[in-house]
Amino acid sequence: MKHAQPIPCDLLIVNGKVLTLDSQDRRIRQGAVAVSDGVILDVGDTADLLARTRPHKVLDAEGCVVLPGLVNAHTHAAMTLFRGLADDLPLMDWLQHHIFPAEKKLTEDWVYWGTLLACAEMILSGTTCFCDMYLFEHKVAQAADEAGMRALVGEVLYDFPSPHYGPLENGLRFTQDLIAEWKDHPLVRIAVEPHAPYTCSPDLIRACFHMAESHGVPMVIHLSENQAEVEEILRRYGKRPVAHLAELGVLSDRVIADHCVAVDEDDMDLLARHGVHVVHNPESNLKLTSGIAPVPALLERGVNVALGTDGCASNNNLDLLAEMDVCAKIHKAAAQDPTVLDARTVLNMATACGARALGFGDGLGRIQAGAPADLIVVDFRKPHLTPVYDPVSHLVYAAQASDVRHSVIAGRVVMEDRQLLTLDVERICAHVRTIAEKVR
Amino acid sequence: MKHAQPIPCDLLIVNGKVLTLDSQDRRIRQGAVAVSDGVILDVGDTADLLARTRPHKVLDAEGCVVLPGLVNAHTHAAMTLFRGLADDLPLMDWLQHHIFPAEKKLTEDWVYWGTLLACAEMILSGTTCFCDMYLFEHKVAQAADEAGMRALVGEVLYDFPSPHYGPLENGLRFTQDLIAEWKDHPLVRIAVEPHAPYTCSPDLIRACFHMAESHGVPMVIHLSENQAEVEEILRRYGKRPVAHLAELGVLSDRVIADHCVAVDEDDMDLLARHGVHVVHNPESNLKLTSGIAPVPALLERGVNVALGTDGCASNNNLDLLAEMDVCAKIHKAAAQDPTVLDARTVLNMATACGARALGFGDGLGRIQAGAPADLIVVDFRKPHLTPVYDPVSHLVYAAQASDVRHSVIAGRVVMEDRQLLTLDVERICAHVRTIAEKVR
Repeated sequence: MKHAQPIPCDLLIVNGKVLTLDSQDRRIRQGAVAVSDGVILDVGDTADLLARTRPHKVLDAEGCVVLPGLVNAHTHAAMTLFRGLADDLPLMDWLQHHIFPAEKKLTEDWVYWGTLLACAEMILSGTTCFCDMYLFEHKVAQAADEAGMRALVGEVLYDFPSPHYGPLENGLRFTQDLIAEWKDHPLVRIAVEPHAPYTCSPDLIRACFHMAESHGVPMVIHLSENQAEVEEILRRYGKRPVAHLAELGVLSDRVIADHCVAVDEDDMDLLARHGVHVVHNPESNLKLTSGIAPVPALLERGVNVALGTDGCASNNNLDLLAEMDVCAKIHKAAAQDPTVLDARTVLNMATACGARALGFGDGLGRIQAGAPADLIVVDFRKPHLTPVYDPVSHLVYAAQASDVRHSVIAGRVVMEDRQLLTLDVERICAHVRTIAEKVR
Repeated sequence: MKHAQPIPCDLLIVNGKVLTLDSQDRRIRQGAVAVSDGVILDVGDTADLLARTRPHKVLDAEGCVVLPGLVNAHTHAAMTLFRGLADDLPLMDWLQHHIFPAEKKLTEDWVYWGTLLACAEMILSGTTCFCDMYLFEHKVAQAADEAGMRALVGEVLYDFPSPHYGPLENGLRFTQDLIAEWKDHPLVRIAVEPHAPYTCSPDLIRACFHMAESHGVPMVIHLSENQAEVEEILRRYGKRPVAHLAELGVLSDRVIADHCVAVDEDDMDLLARHGVHVVHNPESNLKLTSGIAPVPALLERGVNVALGTDGCASNNNLDLLAEMDVCAKIHKAAAQDPTVLDARTVLNMATACGARALGFGDGLGRIQAGAPADLIVVDFRKPHLTPVYDPVSHLVYAAQASDVRHSVIAGRVVMEDRQLLTLDVERICAHVRTIAEKVR
């Protein structure tokens, strides 16, 4: 009997319980994932894949669960710089006396280091891909590239002058240049990002949408974050924020709408009809008293709802495992129904739904042959994850950031046994501490 | 000039930022805490205490925050055995088809191992003291003693026969015996624990209260956990649960009332007037759709509100750091006021308020001379705790269980550099996995 020649591959993860999160939700007990050229080559039994492949590197996942990397679909990464600077304050006091004054001092150097810190925290807590909106986004792109993270980034645009680019025209040109500059990057992509309906004129929002369309990139916007925004937009335009954007002709499946807390039935119908992707940020929404977004009703309408942490000034962490836990729990209380947002649904929001929202299609968020190899290995050999009846329940309701053992992005091992391989954490933390002295 | 002779002490924690949480909320930058005979001898500057004491053991807290150990004021520790067994189900389906059948198989051996697992998880996440209600509580007391944890435990009592003691009379006698047996234990105390107004007759509740009074121990009871309970008690007795207990004459500062979610203004006035301690369990209340307890209104009335995780079947972890985060956030959204339950208030709930509720007075929950030496050291040299503007904010909004580095209970080091010194974690986890096979 002749054996086929083993297939060379870059990486083989072995001996883990593999949660494919694919369309059949396959789970493989002694599973293995083979990776080459940044994509998943094969997934199956460990013994079988060990026999059939010749891996350059093997990662052990004994006692661990292997799943797609988490997608943080909305954040302001560099706001790690302002983590815990001010809390428990009325929104306007918090913004005007703490956050805005701190942001006035922002430099591209600060954003670079704050984003590196965010990337370290995200990788350490299982996130492999994020969507960012902030200032000096060329430095966010650079930091994400250095960290080896997958990212969709874009400069925040609004009617008033920016501490980065000055007048708005420069901002639009800057975004256009960013898109050109990062066009062929394998992991970092650019979005057009008008801040919100209350900070952006109809002309600006339309210009952004057309730029996004003409370059085939997503448009990211904060939308209906709270009731005050709804009232302000009603006052100005006679329409609620979602209807306002619909009238401007800028709702489509290219649009990523962050928050959507204060939405009514008609708003939700519009979001569903236009295929808008919604990013839910429960912890920030609670902390800033925006409210609880009607996620079960959005899901019922078929809206693609992803999960985000928002920035560290209003959370105050980038931990998607904790965000999943809060997400699954608050909607049960809000709906008075313990069956809503079950663990599997919430895990999907934090993986495949996020990938889809950000336009990283092609199977990202699933472990299947041909999909991008963004994978995390979570160590279940912990008291707080013992015993195991259902690993998905544990990922949502019990796992902690520090349980994430290995992380692979586009086939590259960016964390092995809790050690970051792309970032010098001590140097980053030390540098951020020097920045913090200037923030205060 | 003559120097005083250095004072011998058992333990000196050095170089930490000490949050005393005392009445002046003193914070000491390069702080130290000296411990002898289970109590805090002194707290001050590291250089000063190094000069003035001759410690038997020194614990380093460089880059760390030293604070009182956390108090988990309501749990069912052994329910770690059922962690993730069933989630996202209607309450009655969950109870009748999953939890009750599993509990029918309970043995004292199961409770012992489940509690050991809980103690491991609690120490690893910064909890040094807990209050328990379950079956076979002599084994809970034994496990807590072996773990070196401070605990208030009590056998759950109700009208129907128990899988442990059989008919109710046995339960009352068993509780009486437990009280006698553990009377002189330095760390483990016994409470009388009628389950709830809907499972306990007025006679039983009165008998429990009188037993608690005559032995000078606390009485623990679930109270007004949800609206269904309120309606049931109204139907049976024509009064809401709190008023029902008031009429029975069993409300006093000896009573620890768990949950108190479905309470109205009159209920809250009664709780305040009688000095009843309330334990808030936000994550369990959300997951089981009980609702959000009116904690800000209780605090306004001067009610002592402590924090608990409830059992692992409805949380699904015993992580009080995560519980503080959720607690601080949900009440902001519920009250539509970002200033309620600020970080300092929530940290107090999880420390001094818990100690006071459980009757471990004498300064527990504060770092001050003469107080019991229950201390934790939290490592802030982490990306997700960088930078630091306010350590209290980080403890509530950003710290993770795995940041807890050392733990000291009654002067004994129970965890050093994440290593448990009183428990064999691998053996416990392995044994619980064999139990779980029988649970399923």
